[in-house]
Amino acid sequence: MVQRATLTQVAQRAGVSIASASRALNGLVASPATVEKVRRAADDLGYVPDASARALKMGSTGQLTFAVDDIGNPVYVEMMTGVQEVVAAGGYRLQVTSTGATSGPHSVLDLIRNLRRGYADGLILSPLRVTPELLAELAATPVPVVVIGRLPQHAGVDTVMTDSALGVALAVEHLHAQGRRRIAFLNGPGDTTPGAARRRGFDEAVAAHPDVVASTHEAVDFTMSAGREAAHRLLDPTGRSTTAELAASPGTPDAVVAANDLLAIGALHAAHDLGLDVPGRLAVTGVDDTSLTEIVHPSLTSVSLASRRRGQLAAELLMRRLEDPARAPQVLSVPPLLQVRGSSTTTAGIR
Amino acid sequence: MVQRATLTQVAQRAGVSIASASRALNGLVASPATVEKVRRAADDLGYVPDASARALKMGSTGQLTFAVDDIGNPVYVEMMTGVQEVVAAGGYRLQVTSTGATSGPHSVLDLIRNLRRGYADGLILSPLRVTPELLAELAATPVPVVVIGRLPQHAGVDTVMTDSALGVALAVEHLHAQGRRRIAFLNGPGDTTPGAARRRGFDEAVAAHPDVVASTHEAVDFTMSAGREAAHRLLDPTGRSTTAELAASPGTPDAVVAANDLLAIGALHAAHDLGLDVPGRLAVTGVDDTSLTEIVHPSLTSVSLASRRRGQLAAELLMRRLEDPARAPQVLSVPPLLQVRGSSTTTAGIR
Repeated sequence: MVQRATLTQVAQRAGVSIASASRALNGLVASPATVEKVRRAADDLGYVPDASARALKMGSTGQLTFAVDDIGNPVYVEMMTGVQEVVAAGGYRLQVTSTGATSGPHSVLDLIRNLRRGYADGLILSPLRVTPELLAELAATPVPVVVIGRLPQHAGVDTVMTDSALGVALAVEHLHAQGRRRIAFLNGPGDTTPGAARRRGFDEAVAAHPDVVASTHEAVDFTMSAGREAAHRLLDPTGRSTTAELAASPGTPDAVVAANDLLAIGALHAAHDLGLDVPGRLAVTGVDDTSLTEIVHPSLTSVSLASRRRGQLAAELLMRRLEDPARAPQVLSVPPLLQVRGSSTTTAGIR
Repeated sequence: MVQRATLTQVAQRAGVSIASASRALNGLVASPATVEKVRRAADDLGYVPDASARALKMGSTGQLTFAVDDIGNPVYVEMMTGVQEVVAAGGYRLQVTSTGATSGPHSVLDLIRNLRRGYADGLILSPLRVTPELLAELAATPVPVVVIGRLPQHAGVDTVMTDSALGVALAVEHLHAQGRRRIAFLNGPGDTTPGAARRRGFDEAVAAHPDVVASTHEAVDFTMSAGREAAHRLLDPTGRSTTAELAASPGTPDAVVAANDLLAIGALHAAHDLGLDVPGRLAVTGVDDTSLTEIVHPSLTSVSLASRRRGQLAAELLMRRLEDPARAPQVLSVPPLLQVRGSSTTTAGIR
């Protein structure tokens, strides 16, 4: 633990006035000789500008924050990779913070209020739920915020969205084309923004196919363990059927459309627990097209929502907003894309 | 975007002096009536204490930083879960930052120097490489730092370590007991702290078994794709053998001990690519016992290094250091534990 060097000490060591030292360090008008002397003195003393002093004088902390609901979900890791690529190129350090259940007493509202303390120059936020309180905080925030997700029209916030309802519909169409007719939807909580959108996409897609028997089920959250538990209830409602009974029963779905990859992997586990062959007896699809799709067996068909690209675009919007705080808010959208793998098709060549 | 309310404005609105307002907001001696008036004025104005002003006056930003090499490696997610549990209970917000290849120009040294700016009250660091420069920065840091990893003795830093060399030895002993005699070690870069320790554990373990034919191979980093590539070279050196040739060749190992789970999953992929049955022809083990072990097929035998527990212990050391900066540095250690799963044994009941 060392004492922090002060600007006064730097100026004394360099033999210049405090004002000259400040100008030299902040890149303002100063002679090259002064800049050289002051920089050397600052290096010798290990001087670093104080956070808030620098923030007040220069309007920059050099840090940006990315707030996610569940840092254990690889979809956020992929978004973060995209964000990081852009902000690192812009010379910023990225901090990631969790606003989900594991983050304890600190909600996303606390986080946004905390921005007023000047710890970060900007925030990228991917909220699970968009409440009136959140919209009010976003409208009053003192630093730029970009949202990855879906906000009401005219929210006045830079936003990167995708069409996850269409994404789920693509999965339903694929399964229907593969001959599946008893399709169950395994959702996360329906009161979340993604839960509501994906449910809508499922309902609209199955409504277009009168030959499909559809059902909807909710897991308590968007995690693997919740998906496994809900899929057990979905596939074996009595909890007492044998594999042969479940496989033969017309009541057992022939496809599960899960609302994200973690839920889908939970469903793969449940099918394995119950002895149901995937994809022979049961097809399974996910959403997010995370890196997990390639490490499960069979590999998981999933709807890509271009997570990394959304992260890049959000970071680009944030960098532009930092350069020009007055520019009009922009809403960008990336389309979903179905990636077919072994869990939903018996076609040769796909494992 | 709104103007930041000042302490002066809060004092004016409350009808008290600035000193009284400051005392009331900082929990110092003030009459209940004054505290009530000042709190209401602060709420009305949306007043939040400035970061550095608060840091200087109260010695606290309310934030702690956890720096990891690769936020995409689930081992860090599990450490972070442990850290989060403890710091959230202590009323702190946790920020996670990446110091690895994807973090751009900002190294771990920049991060530590940046702490002098007063953005965080403390840092937990899990460095891949311990350099003299890192030790110098750790000795000079103005805020408490706890290291998860292995430092030279007498480094004078709170540290949580484990014995990953022993962990790798446990994997070798298990494979030997299962009858494996041609054991390959799939390491990450050997010049990293974990790479060197795990290599040492492998070398010592195989030296105790003259009947084992051992070899060592390095992947370019500790990722799944690097593991897959290195495992291909390891299992099929000519790149032109058929599955039957590889399976029949005494030159093909009957076990791969990987230095972490990502490398092990890369090896599972390579075995699948080449048609080698796991565990029948080839056993595979990992290190870290991440959540991925249960989602691959077959499930992955892995050495637990108690990542979540190490995160908890590191956070507890940090909290104690924040309470008492003068206490003697402490080094805690957690033992490794082998978790046997389907990838290394053909015993019935384990899949």
